[in-house]
Amino acid sequence: MPLVTDQPAYVHPAACCENPDIGAGTRVWPFAHVMEHTIVGANCNIGGHTFIEDGAHIGNGVIIKNHVMIWDGVTIEDDAFIGPGVVFTNDRYPRSRHLPQTKARYSRCENWLERTRVCQGATVGAGCVVICGVTIGRFAMAAAGSVVTRDVPDHRLVAGNPARGVGWVCTCGQRLDQAPICPGCGQGFDADGDTIKPAG
Amino acid sequence: MPLVTDQPAYVHPAACCENPDIGAGTRVWPFAHVMEHTIVGANCNIGGHTFIEDGAHIGNGVIIKNHVMIWDGVTIEDDAFIGPGVVFTNDRYPRSRHLPQTKARYSRCENWLERTRVCQGATVGAGCVVICGVTIGRFAMAAAGSVVTRDVPDHRLVAGNPARGVGWVCTCGQRLDQAPICPGCGQGFDADGDTIKPAG
Amino acid sequence: MPLVTDQPAYVHPAACCENPDIGAGTRVWPFAHVMEHTIVGANCNIGGHTFIEDGAHIGNGVIIKNHVMIWDGVTIEDDAFIGPGVVFTNDRYPRSRHLPQTKARYSRCENWLERTRVCQGATVGAGCVVICGVTIGRFAMAAAGSVVTRDVPDHRLVAGNPARGVGWVCTCGQRLDQAPICPGCGQGFDADGDTIKPAG
Repeated sequence: MPLVTDQPAYVHPAACCENPDIGAGTRVWPFAHVMEHTIVGANCNIGGHTFIEDGAHIGNGVIIKNHVMIWDGVTIEDDAFIGPGVVFTNDRYPRSRHLPQTKARYSRCENWLERTRVCQGATVGAGCVVICGVTIGRFAMAAAGSVVTRDVPDHRLVAGNPARGVGWVCTCGQRLDQAPICPGCGQGFDADGDTIKPAG
Repeated sequence: MPLVTDQPAYVHPAACCENPDIGAGTRVWPFAHVMEHTIVGANCNIGGHTFIEDGAHIGNGVIIKNHVMIWDGVTIEDDAFIGPGVVFTNDRYPRSRHLPQTKARYSRCENWLERTRVCQGATVGAGCVVICGVTIGRFAMAAAGSVVTRDVPDHRLVAGNPARGVGWVCTCGQRLDQAPICPGCGQGFDADGDTIKPAG
Repeated sequence: MPLVTDQPAYVHPAACCENPDIGAGTRVWPFAHVMEHTIVGANCNIGGHTFIEDGAHIGNGVIIKNHVMIWDGVTIEDDAFIGPGVVFTNDRYPRSRHLPQTKARYSRCENWLERTRVCQGATVGAGCVVICGVTIGRFAMAAAGSVVTRDVPDHRLVAGNPARGVGWVCTCGQRLDQAPICPGCGQGFDADGDTIKPAG
């Protein structure tokens, strides 16, 4: 995808976009809230009612559907797809900060903030919950409704609560379970230990 | 339910309703977004923060609670109940449209859009995720938190991730597991192969 | 936590806060909707896109993240943490109110409304769905993505769909599985039948 685009960014009048530097060609839809200290690349879609917190990092060409929540510490790489209603997290043992017992932990973000990374071209399906600290590999896919609690290898398809590996997917999104050649686009794959990678 | 009503439609001033022809008596609540090319019947409730995309079709008397996402290709028939936070889908293998490998697939919606139908009087419980391509039968019920991946027969109660049949429900919503007569309203049911239907 | 605070309540201009009496120090973020006849205590956080319905009761020091739905009949006690995207419920067998078969049931709220209680200091993790009628005990924790269908004892950690007990957590949030002494804060616990309580 060429990152050069003639289109400026578009922010719907009913959105709350506090970041003045979102990328060219990116569109922000009604009731989305993008905080000021975010990084949002070019040619992205920021769906309605989505929230992007200070400290989040969105690459180029990322499709974020509606009602998604992306927090400080979450990185979404280029050309990923984040389905509707996906919930990220950044604290593995959250409590109210008003409890005396949590005061020390919440005094410094290094104590509690865990980072999450969605790699290039991956898909996080509708309604997924992603536990902080995980990496979702390149062109991996978490099926709709998954609760992702562990790292997902490149091209791996996971599903369920907690999410477990149930197959493999091509770069184009099609399942590869029948053969190492994609029935959709013809791309071949090589096994590489417990992972796969495009052939050639 | 008589569709004749004396009440006009009501749109809260904090909603974004781009469809000028929603049905009489229908109410649209704060931060809901209804796109222009939708069909929304009479006497519906469109809960706050709900999104209804161009191409969606909502019947009469439909109760849609808050934070629901209804896409192009989704049909909700009369008198259905869609619980809070329900996420529909319309693409079984979503990827970013900016990947060169997906360009052909996303060039025509016939290539990727799968339709979903919620039949008359059915209930989709809170927080359900509904995979595209399924039909949820008349007066069926998906329990809260279900991930619906397959068709649901009329009056069937499903639950879990993925959702599986766990019982039957009456037209009024009560469970029928103890006997073929509803403990709530007294309606009798006849077995009909692997399905049930109201007696008489 | 001292409830005396010098800060007034703060309501972001893009929020819809109809309750003129929310507690001192409480902050309400963009696109949140707080109805008029709610009780919202002091020093709370009401995250963006969250909805709080008439009849809901929120204590002091409660952290409610984004996109949460809290209905009539739900009580959240002091210093609880409600994660992003949590969906509460208040009707165990919801149907459209426009069906003739449901008219009697919905004629009085005593017929259908079931109450839910989240006790002091508890955590409801990201994306949880909480079935009405349950009590989540003091300092209990529902892991992200849980569907809570039964009562949760004090300090119990539950996970899954449906949620089942998988461990115990300290007041500070750390897991206690290795020993009856918290590895985070050093608090000791005593077994008390099928439950635990802080020692001393």
